[in-house]
Amino acid sequence: MSDIQRFDDLADFSPERIAALLALAGRLEKHPEPEALKGKVLSLLFLNPSLRTLASFQASMTRLGGGAFVISPEMSIHGLETRPGIVMDGAAAEHVKEAVPVIASYGDALGLRAFAERRDLVEDLEDREYRSMAELVSTPLINMESAINHPCQSLADWKTMDDLGAPVSGGKFVLSWAYHPLALPLAVPAATIQMAAMRGMDVTVLRPEGFELPPQVMDKARSLAGRSGGSISETDDRAEALDGAHVLYAKSWSSTVHYGDKHEDYQLRNRHEDWCVDEEWFAPAEEDCRFMHCLPVRRNVVVSEAVLDGPRSVVVPEARNRMWVQMAVLYAMLGPGL
Amino acid sequence: MSDIQRFDDLADFSPERIAALLALAGRLEKHPEPEALKGKVLSLLFLNPSLRTLASFQASMTRLGGGAFVISPEMSIHGLETRPGIVMDGAAAEHVKEAVPVIASYGDALGLRAFAERRDLVEDLEDREYRSMAELVSTPLINMESAINHPCQSLADWKTMDDLGAPVSGGKFVLSWAYHPLALPLAVPAATIQMAAMRGMDVTVLRPEGFELPPQVMDKARSLAGRSGGSISETDDRAEALDGAHVLYAKSWSSTVHYGDKHEDYQLRNRHEDWCVDEEWFAPAEEDCRFMHCLPVRRNVVVSEAVLDGPRSVVVPEARNRMWVQMAVLYAMLGPGL
Amino acid sequence: MSDIQRFDDLADFSPERIAALLALAGRLEKHPEPEALKGKVLSLLFLNPSLRTLASFQASMTRLGGGAFVISPEMSIHGLETRPGIVMDGAAAEHVKEAVPVIASYGDALGLRAFAERRDLVEDLEDREYRSMAELVSTPLINMESAINHPCQSLADWKTMDDLGAPVSGGKFVLSWAYHPLALPLAVPAATIQMAAMRGMDVTVLRPEGFELPPQVMDKARSLAGRSGGSISETDDRAEALDGAHVLYAKSWSSTVHYGDKHEDYQLRNRHEDWCVDEEWFAPAEEDCRFMHCLPVRRNVVVSEAVLDGPRSVVVPEARNRMWVQMAVLYAMLGPGL
Repeated sequence: MSDIQRFDDLADFSPERIAALLALAGRLEKHPEPEALKGKVLSLLFLNPSLRTLASFQASMTRLGGGAFVISPEMSIHGLETRPGIVMDGAAAEHVKEAVPVIASYGDALGLRAFAERRDLVEDLEDREYRSMAELVSTPLINMESAINHPCQSLADWKTMDDLGAPVSGGKFVLSWAYHPLALPLAVPAATIQMAAMRGMDVTVLRPEGFELPPQVMDKARSLAGRSGGSISETDDRAEALDGAHVLYAKSWSSTVHYGDKHEDYQLRNRHEDWCVDEEWFAPAEEDCRFMHCLPVRRNVVVSEAVLDGPRSVVVPEARNRMWVQMAVLYAMLGPGL
Repeated sequence: MSDIQRFDDLADFSPERIAALLALAGRLEKHPEPEALKGKVLSLLFLNPSLRTLASFQASMTRLGGGAFVISPEMSIHGLETRPGIVMDGAAAEHVKEAVPVIASYGDALGLRAFAERRDLVEDLEDREYRSMAELVSTPLINMESAINHPCQSLADWKTMDDLGAPVSGGKFVLSWAYHPLALPLAVPAATIQMAAMRGMDVTVLRPEGFELPPQVMDKARSLAGRSGGSISETDDRAEALDGAHVLYAKSWSSTVHYGDKHEDYQLRNRHEDWCVDEEWFAPAEEDCRFMHCLPVRRNVVVSEAVLDGPRSVVVPEARNRMWVQMAVLYAMLGPGL
Repeated sequence: MSDIQRFDDLADFSPERIAALLALAGRLEKHPEPEALKGKVLSLLFLNPSLRTLASFQASMTRLGGGAFVISPEMSIHGLETRPGIVMDGAAAEHVKEAVPVIASYGDALGLRAFAERRDLVEDLEDREYRSMAELVSTPLINMESAINHPCQSLADWKTMDDLGAPVSGGKFVLSWAYHPLALPLAVPAATIQMAAMRGMDVTVLRPEGFELPPQVMDKARSLAGRSGGSISETDDRAEALDGAHVLYAKSWSSTVHYGDKHEDYQLRNRHEDWCVDEEWFAPAEEDCRFMHCLPVRRNVVVSEAVLDGPRSVVVPEARNRMWVQMAVLYAMLGPGL
């Protein structure tokens, strides 16, 4: 099996390769290989803030014997211009056309984070910013969250469900919208339903009217579910969605009918402050139904403290799995391979 | 001798274990062991700013063959909420209840800095914030300065005095308050007098009225002095305190009679701008009496430039010793052990 | 050949030692030595912002098996005071007299960046701030850009020309001023012409009136050219300068007749907005004349997008060479030597 050059989207990988990555992650979790990436460098470029990704990628490289460096937005890096063809006589002193290939050139691979602009839905669905920067990179590349994807989170979520023994065929996975005061990106919900679909689960998207996931996202997930034996459905009926559920994955996202219009989005979302996951939600679910979330999470806004601190919640091991799966990706990219 | 799981307070360690740590620090200073912590990760979480601690812990891990990552307050990490039970609908997007265990989970050990709130003396004396976060951590843990302790600084100070041949039994150690425009925490003075007491020295706290160290701090130090053959006393008489002194350790701290009341504290401290250590202070001391300070230090405010640049000052080797003693702690925690 | 203790100025090195450094850089580029600096630490102190230098030095140390830590101006490091004799009762809580030796003491070498103050030309030409801080350092030291020098950039530029096969004897090197909205330091132009002079090239400085390089800079370069068989000349005539050129190196800098007077500088520079390098500039040059720039560069202000994205531009490999030459310097300083 050949090595990985790009880790942009979980959907680019066959079931066999995903199985191999998960097996490798599990092996590295149990048996350290602190010389596997000796002298190797991972360049980390964050155009948006980060905590888990920043920490877990650095830890991943150290555990494999290499190292990483970080360029992040709070550094006074002269500001990075992204517009093509611009006359740079304003504040920004550097263009991504130089910054991205240079930063990439110091590493054996580049991790890149570029959140959705959340102005134009088509642009974000096409992942234009991430793709335009990816074109500038000749080293291996890892998507550390783009406008519409977050494959490291998804692979970690998959491993988390495997670790817990969550059923595959017949497993019922609910992705639920939750209230949050801000209009957040679609990256995690889009990546999450396709991951659960690829895992062969029966996926239900639970969300209020106005927060439907875009047809492009739903169609892609449906096509993946078709191949894996899973299914995709959508509802705003909580009891129906949670009936017999094995996993409730909560996440807030922007209104897709008012995408790019913060004012209208807030008007709409503020009617749904009651979409805060609490123990009652789980009444129709399987008794040991798990609660997942990618973090950061707002306590008593997105989910009640009782659920988050209770036995259903797996958010800490889920976050920790980021490290093991990223180590597997890096090992496959830069080390002995899959 | 068993390994170290927590390095919260020097007072938790027997004289034998401290002697072993200091011997190990000296050995690592002379004989590098760049493979001792191969592939090991130290997570560093700073809820308050840092320079020496930030630099010396990273250097410590590199010298032992491992690595560290840093999460610090100037990063745009969404803000960390600390209040229990809160409805997180404000600016903070993440709670320490998730952030601390997740950050800890990427490392083999966690270093944690959480300064005193300086609102409530009882709360700070009980080290409530540090302890509440420590409860969330299942890996080994190192106190990188809490409300009332700074064991890494104290172990470095101890080594510094050993390196200089400062006498133990009969050695006279003066901790002096000094003027500073801000109401600083009690962590360093509290840790310092207990360290000198544990070392068996005769400790005098020199401070103006209103800046007495709290009875809990004095009593703990007295009890430790009782076991080591040292002693603890307190005065506002400079000549009496410095008489025959071997070490003058300067540090500013908050008024304890006006704790939490910045206005009253400033009124009081501003009457003592003359508490700036200069050469005259040393007249009654031993001829080679040393000047110590944990840094950062304000020149010509806390201490005169002449003293700081003169032969009495050991502040740079003292700061450097942070690295060697932290390497010993990490080696005992994560490596071959004590 | 003895090891390197200070890397302050390329002019401190004999042609033989520079040749050896370049050969070593080329060897490390082809044959990794990930154990050469095992357990070694590089301290990086930035008093001014950085991207390439920050990233490339960290990558350099990782590739050689060691590590680095970074102290930079955006960290809340209490602020660093630089004025001697000051009473520190203001915002700054620490003086460089403590901070620099302490930060240096955690590493096996120190990298230091201290830009020109751009108030007083004599002070900047004498590199007073860098030199005053260098005096505080007892470890090996690397200049990561001072008021008047940037030896790492120059060595990378030299390697870049060698890699491209740019002629040495008879090679024509043009350093051209270019328009930029800000009054930038003289460090890169001063370092660049002396580098090209040391390489034995015929160097022409092309700049509008009022932007002449200082006589001290020109004289030093002339003296170096005298020894290497190169030459130095100066003009404001573009066609004359570019005639038969092999390399056009663009860079903006402050007016030297109005040094320290931002208002007068801006009045003058704003008359030269047409000094934006575009394809027409290359008409009198050699057909394969290269475009070099140290980055960051403002697109369509300093240079046209067509040139920057076209085949003449070598700015990305030029930036990447920072890493290989810095690895050679570090290897000579801290490792097996030259």
